[in-house]
Amino acid sequence: MKIIAVNAGSSSLKFQLLEMPEEKEIASGIVERIGNKNAEFTFKFNGEKFVKKGEILDHSKAVELVIEGLLKHGVINKLEEIEGVGHRVVQGGELFKDSAVIDDEVVAKIASLNDLAPLHNPAHIIGINAFRKALPNVIQVAVFDTTFHQTMPEESYLYSVPFEWYEKYGVRKYGAHGTSHQYVSEIAAKRLGKEDTKIVVCHIGNGASITAVKNGKSVDTSMGLTPLEGIPMGTRSGNVDPTIFGLIAKKEGKSIDQILNDLNKHSGYLGVSGVSHDSRDIVDAAHQGNHRAQLAITIQAKRIADYIGSYFVLMGGLDAIVFTAGIGENAKEVREAIVDRLSAVGAKLDPVANNSRGEKEISAADSKVKIWVIPTNEEVMIARDVMRLRK
Amino acid sequence: MKIIAVNAGSSSLKFQLLEMPEEKEIASGIVERIGNKNAEFTFKFNGEKFVKKGEILDHSKAVELVIEGLLKHGVINKLEEIEGVGHRVVQGGELFKDSAVIDDEVVAKIASLNDLAPLHNPAHIIGINAFRKALPNVIQVAVFDTTFHQTMPEESYLYSVPFEWYEKYGVRKYGAHGTSHQYVSEIAAKRLGKEDTKIVVCHIGNGASITAVKNGKSVDTSMGLTPLEGIPMGTRSGNVDPTIFGLIAKKEGKSIDQILNDLNKHSGYLGVSGVSHDSRDIVDAAHQGNHRAQLAITIQAKRIADYIGSYFVLMGGLDAIVFTAGIGENAKEVREAIVDRLSAVGAKLDPVANNSRGEKEISAADSKVKIWVIPTNEEVMIARDVMRLRK
Repeated sequence: MKIIAVNAGSSSLKFQLLEMPEEKEIASGIVERIGNKNAEFTFKFNGEKFVKKGEILDHSKAVELVIEGLLKHGVINKLEEIEGVGHRVVQGGELFKDSAVIDDEVVAKIASLNDLAPLHNPAHIIGINAFRKALPNVIQVAVFDTTFHQTMPEESYLYSVPFEWYEKYGVRKYGAHGTSHQYVSEIAAKRLGKEDTKIVVCHIGNGASITAVKNGKSVDTSMGLTPLEGIPMGTRSGNVDPTIFGLIAKKEGKSIDQILNDLNKHSGYLGVSGVSHDSRDIVDAAHQGNHRAQLAITIQAKRIADYIGSYFVLMGGLDAIVFTAGIGENAKEVREAIVDRLSAVGAKLDPVANNSRGEKEISAADSKVKIWVIPTNEEVMIARDVMRLRK
Repeated sequence: MKIIAVNAGSSSLKFQLLEMPEEKEIASGIVERIGNKNAEFTFKFNGEKFVKKGEILDHSKAVELVIEGLLKHGVINKLEEIEGVGHRVVQGGELFKDSAVIDDEVVAKIASLNDLAPLHNPAHIIGINAFRKALPNVIQVAVFDTTFHQTMPEESYLYSVPFEWYEKYGVRKYGAHGTSHQYVSEIAAKRLGKEDTKIVVCHIGNGASITAVKNGKSVDTSMGLTPLEGIPMGTRSGNVDPTIFGLIAKKEGKSIDQILNDLNKHSGYLGVSGVSHDSRDIVDAAHQGNHRAQLAITIQAKRIADYIGSYFVLMGGLDAIVFTAGIGENAKEVREAIVDRLSAVGAKLDPVANNSRGEKEISAADSKVKIWVIPTNEEVMIARDVMRLRK
């Protein structure tokens, strides 16, 4: 059975077609710069890549192109072969404790959370509507980045701010990357092969979050109301003293939006190093003796180690650390910088294993904590939820 | 020899007169509401308290009153008996790696840091100038809240924001309560009686900060650019997702200053509980079943435990935890809520010891980490520095 997993942005549409329940990727692709004359449709199938450029006016047109591509390349023979569509949705607030079969009410609920994810939820709705139009008789499921973190206790998710902000506007920690944290922590828990498990997942990509997963449930995570909070990332600052707003407004005459833009787009690796937001550039520059590039890695590693220490205490111990996502899976220097700081919890790296690529155990034989690299797969999680809810 | 320790606020002047090197308090007092018609001068000497009300126009007048009081009550017989004045200064930036003998240049340097402590440094300068006028021939020393934290490594004190913010405006972590953290950690290190020491100091008053002290040096602290960052306090939020500024501005039409005011004055215990900023009121309300009051304590305890976990990892272990300041010294419920979360680091409370008052060890016999209540004494630290620098 074929299920399509969709991730719609404001001007992009990513998809992956999966054979289920085998969880095998059949084809994938992305439409970029939707709404522009120089839009681009990249389609991957059977080890080949096809790129088509030209004007793509809106998301409906993009969905048409995707379906056309699937038919043209013989991935499917007829539309009816697609038996379910799963949509990634960044913000499910407190409204969605589980993935949801999409109907008008669910779309309205997702829209009601636009204030909490102004860049993402409106774009998701456009993608959802385009697919509902193109495949009106197929089950469509919304899978939220936040659902996995809905198990956090109050003391983890509430800020110590005026309580009305929570009651009126939903100001609280929601976290993100939930499907990723769930996917890799489930694999890790199985490997541990025991009942009670204490796992920290380090999802480190251009966006990055750390989650404490106790007995299969998220009990705390580093991202907050939005993906800006937590550890330093490619271009995001993570936590700062809130007074920075007052000082920068005074010094540079900037507005809240401009300062938030600086913290979202010009901070993190990029802000500290001045070199790049990309960990590969930063690692290269650090190797060449660029102090600020080294600093960008060291600061991030230190803040990640801070969270691991916090979660060790929060969970009352630690069985395993999992690295996942672009940087977590591929940047051995970043993993090393983090684990080198973790002797207090008994975590010790196997440097040889850490230097090799792919899914693997990278802890030393005498490490008290297992350390794994486990590639994440958010599309599989989305397809699984479509399968579960179509019954 | 008599040394006076001074803490000048924008409308207040606190002092303590000490006999040195015995470190004995002789007299103390506070002038409040300076500049108002209903100002108040409270003077404590020999177990008695004297209160005088009336108009006190400025800090010079307040200093005159203090000296008059010392003479009138026979604390000193002549002005010359005061042989040194130590001034608490909140923000020393990167300019002051040690306390400093005050001259015009030092005053100018303190003034140059006004932007980093707009409520405090200008007031300190007013206090300093008033005492320099009243006691022109006496050594005056500035003792900074930030000096002790100047030993933090870059990865602790730098934010992951545009690097120019640090270079141009000094945006970095400075920390606070330095004299307190130093005072109690020195006592704790002596008690441990060994060379290498790993101590976490929990200075919990209406303002609160947690510091990792390794081998006598601050290596990280929870307060940041200003005392707003870190853990939730009486009325301060501690860390929040910076995006809160965008959301609250949109929802309530508030400016940066208004939101900062909410985070400084209407958050913490007060914001979460809706009851009070005072830990005693919160504990009482929690005992009576007020969920939000209980929550205010639980959230703060959780965030403090987070920092202790981080610092356990940062220092590579933990020998002792010290509680100090108003709440740390007196609120057994708060201490219990924190230590109950620390089993992973081997910290265990002796509930009987915890229930008694005063300076004491409160760890259980089988606790791997010593836990002490040690009353802080910032005035003694200030007087010690005056003694050291007058030579």
